Amino acid sequence: MCCAKATVWAGYTRRVLPSPEPVFISFLIPMALIVHKYGGTSMGSTERIRNVAKRVAKWVRAGHQLVVVPSAMSGETNRLLGLAKELHPNAIDEAAQRELDALASTGEQVSVGLLALALQAEGMQAVSYAGWQVPIRTDSAFTKARIEAIDDSRIRADLATGKVVIVTGFQGVDAEGNVTTLGRGGSDTSAVAVAAAMKADECLIYTDVDGVYTTDPRVVPEARRLHTVSFEEMLEMASMGSKVLQIRSVEFAGKYRVPLRVLSSFTPWDIDLAEEAASGTLITFEDDEKMEQAVVSGIAFNRDEAKIAVLGVPDTPGIAYQILGAVAEANIDVDVIIQNVSKDGKTDFSFTVNRNEFARAMALLKEKVAPSLGATEVVGDTRICKVSIVGIGMRSHVGIAARMFKALADEGINIQMISTSEIKTSVVIDEKYMELAVRGLHRAFELDQDNAPAT
Amino acid sequence: MCCAKATVWAGYTRRVLPSPEPVFISFLIPMALIVHKYGGTSMGSTERIRNVAKRVAKWVRAGHQLVVVPSAMSGETNRLLGLAKELHPNAIDEAAQRELDALASTGEQVSVGLLALALQAEGMQAVSYAGWQVPIRTDSAFTKARIEAIDDSRIRADLATGKVVIVTGFQGVDAEGNVTTLGRGGSDTSAVAVAAAMKADECLIYTDVDGVYTTDPRVVPEARRLHTVSFEEMLEMASMGSKVLQIRSVEFAGKYRVPLRVLSSFTPWDIDLAEEAASGTLITFEDDEKMEQAVVSGIAFNRDEAKIAVLGVPDTPGIAYQILGAVAEANIDVDVIIQNVSKDGKTDFSFTVNRNEFARAMALLKEKVAPSLGATEVVGDTRICKVSIVGIGMRSHVGIAARMFKALADEGINIQMISTSEIKTSVVIDEKYMELAVRGLHRAFELDQDNAPAT
Repeated sequence: MCCAKATVWAGYTRRVLPSPEPVFISFLIPMALIVHKYGGTSMGSTERIRNVAKRVAKWVRAGHQLVVVPSAMSGETNRLLGLAKELHPNAIDEAAQRELDALASTGEQVSVGLLALALQAEGMQAVSYAGWQVPIRTDSAFTKARIEAIDDSRIRADLATGKVVIVTGFQGVDAEGNVTTLGRGGSDTSAVAVAAAMKADECLIYTDVDGVYTTDPRVVPEARRLHTVSFEEMLEMASMGSKVLQIRSVEFAGKYRVPLRVLSSFTPWDIDLAEEAASGTLITFEDDEKMEQAVVSGIAFNRDEAKIAVLGVPDTPGIAYQILGAVAEANIDVDVIIQNVSKDGKTDFSFTVNRNEFARAMALLKEKVAPSLGATEVVGDTRICKVSIVGIGMRSHVGIAARMFKALADEGINIQMISTSEIKTSVVIDEKYMELAVRGLHRAFELDQDNAPAT
Repeated sequence: MCCAKATVWAGYTRRVLPSPEPVFISFLIPMALIVHKYGGTSMGSTERIRNVAKRVAKWVRAGHQLVVVPSAMSGETNRLLGLAKELHPNAIDEAAQRELDALASTGEQVSVGLLALALQAEGMQAVSYAGWQVPIRTDSAFTKARIEAIDDSRIRADLATGKVVIVTGFQGVDAEGNVTTLGRGGSDTSAVAVAAAMKADECLIYTDVDGVYTTDPRVVPEARRLHTVSFEEMLEMASMGSKVLQIRSVEFAGKYRVPLRVLSSFTPWDIDLAEEAASGTLITFEDDEKMEQAVVSGIAFNRDEAKIAVLGVPDTPGIAYQILGAVAEANIDVDVIIQNVSKDGKTDFSFTVNRNEFARAMALLKEKVAPSLGATEVVGDTRICKVSIVGIGMRSHVGIAARMFKALADEGINIQMISTSEIKTSVVIDEKYMELAVRGLHRAFELDQDNAPAT
């Protein structure tokens, strides 16, 4: 390991640059077993599928064994579910969800067949499998199934005869032989699960971003692509809405210690293999002692939330439950929660919800909760944002949060709410200061430099 | 049984009229087990799929158990195979054909999912299965597999709980768990095979023609839709290029005595069930004694063939083999074959081939076969047609062929070639007389009348 821990905002595509430093990568292992995952954009046309085939063939010709997990061609899953919605707008019961899965799973089945043909046209031996043929066993939670087991014997036998094996992403089969799907982004999870089952040397996620950044390069031009990032940091970022990887695929990778790399599918297929293998961001499972040296690492932010405050509620036991219980019953997720110190036996209670649910939450609180509690007022604000610093080093270093608050104060930004976890500190601020805050924090934690100093 | 045996040209759509006569039909059986098959046109849009669902629901509400076999949405199979062709224009080896099947089979998997959802939206219980889920076992001849066995236990269990069961047409699974397809039109075969396995009371093939006609109504306006036709006649017609049913589905129906009905999918879904159940043409397996009373029955014709004559070949043993063996080796199918009587130790040898292969056959014969045989000339003619009378009664009645030749002579039509089988007599004539011949024969055998007299 080489460089600073740092985190992770993505959603921006850049040309992949060669990594300037040695990192442990698959191309150094002769005859490695590699899993490639390609997103829907990479599979979006026959021309692009041909490029995927050429890229895969390059890896095979270099002596590696390849298992490839492609998504459906871009737009295909939406097209299929759109047809379903026309016929059955309210397909929420189990019988309907079963059919939605049977339907949606065909998108990836088309992809694997086409990719196998493209590889054969390149002179490769290739064979495709749907999830049920492997089989990839899941539970029966249609539209959001979880993988329970993967039988790798068929894949191994094919690899041993020199074939490239192509496996559908996004889907599996339950104990009764019903096709299930893993939910949106499920192909990432499929790829990682296959890599885990096969004990692959590395799982490469080819996507339309070229790696994981210290923060959004559109906001901070100095944002740096990270060469490596820890699983725990990636997990924290995925849960905050970073679109790079599905959160379950990161959990899976962490659980089974699958070396995972996010890299661009937009590089020319014929770039040098060593260059490609070192590009993007490697997500690693770090030993704890190594983590001791790590510090705050990256800046995440979102504008998805809104703030609600219930003012002047009696400060009695059970008050949090009376407010948040009603919100939870209405199936509204709550994120940051703050309860002020009490004054004259009254307190203020604040929290954030997703903006999409703001109106519903406000109505519920004003009409039902506040009157029964005798609260004086319910106020809301949608013009807020949440900015977080993430870093596995926060566990063992003091003063990180203070440094964050100072950086914000230096910019004249007022903090409305604070929330902390082991490896993350989040603040809620006025939305109009978001860019200012992100840039200030990026600078304060020296994230534009390749080796951030320990605090 | 009621009416004359008569045959079978179809390719023309008419409004289905109620049958004027009682025929043995499923709606007379309470709680019948019925298989419906819908073609790609019937499944061509969500609007049409909704109509299929309403029609199926009508049958279920009348107390019947329904298994439905839909084709892929029209155009979908071609779209998928078109993508495949772009990626691998020469996908002829087994590995490629396996992928083509995996790919093409998804079209029907989309259809069954959508139809199940449409039925659920109609308030029905419905479940869909891909061929591998039933399973429908086939051999491993990718792109032209044959059904070997169908396990009906899963379908039966679902029917018993009141569900409509929807099964993909066109596909199955081999012993190794590979998806196979049955070739073009294979959904007819799937439907009949499922009906045979379940011992269904009737298999209804909903299609874009409204039944089987005595001949093409575009040529003979008096052409009559037949209420019934025998399997053997249907088989003969299918082999002559009638597009109503895939020939293997007719063979299957005959082998397992599945009552099969061809009817229109373009009638309004809410027409009276009894009317619908009696519409179209019922294809029945007749007892031989009944067949004794039957006569010539219908007129088929095609313009697909061309005539080739090898003139002045030595009349020695093995001459037919020397000519046709070379043609067969070039993979060219031969239909009608005539060898003239010998004169001065020389004979003329004529046969017909498909017009698409005429040029290739002529070149082969002129350049290779004729020189080695010492034939004087090879002549060809593409301006011919073949007209056939078909009828199971020809087996036991004499004079039918003579009556055909007289009818043609009455119209002044010269016969160039004659070929006969047990239930068919075909003549090759000048293409320009085709309509004249068909009309003359239709009249001569009184096919415009509901009960043709025995000869």
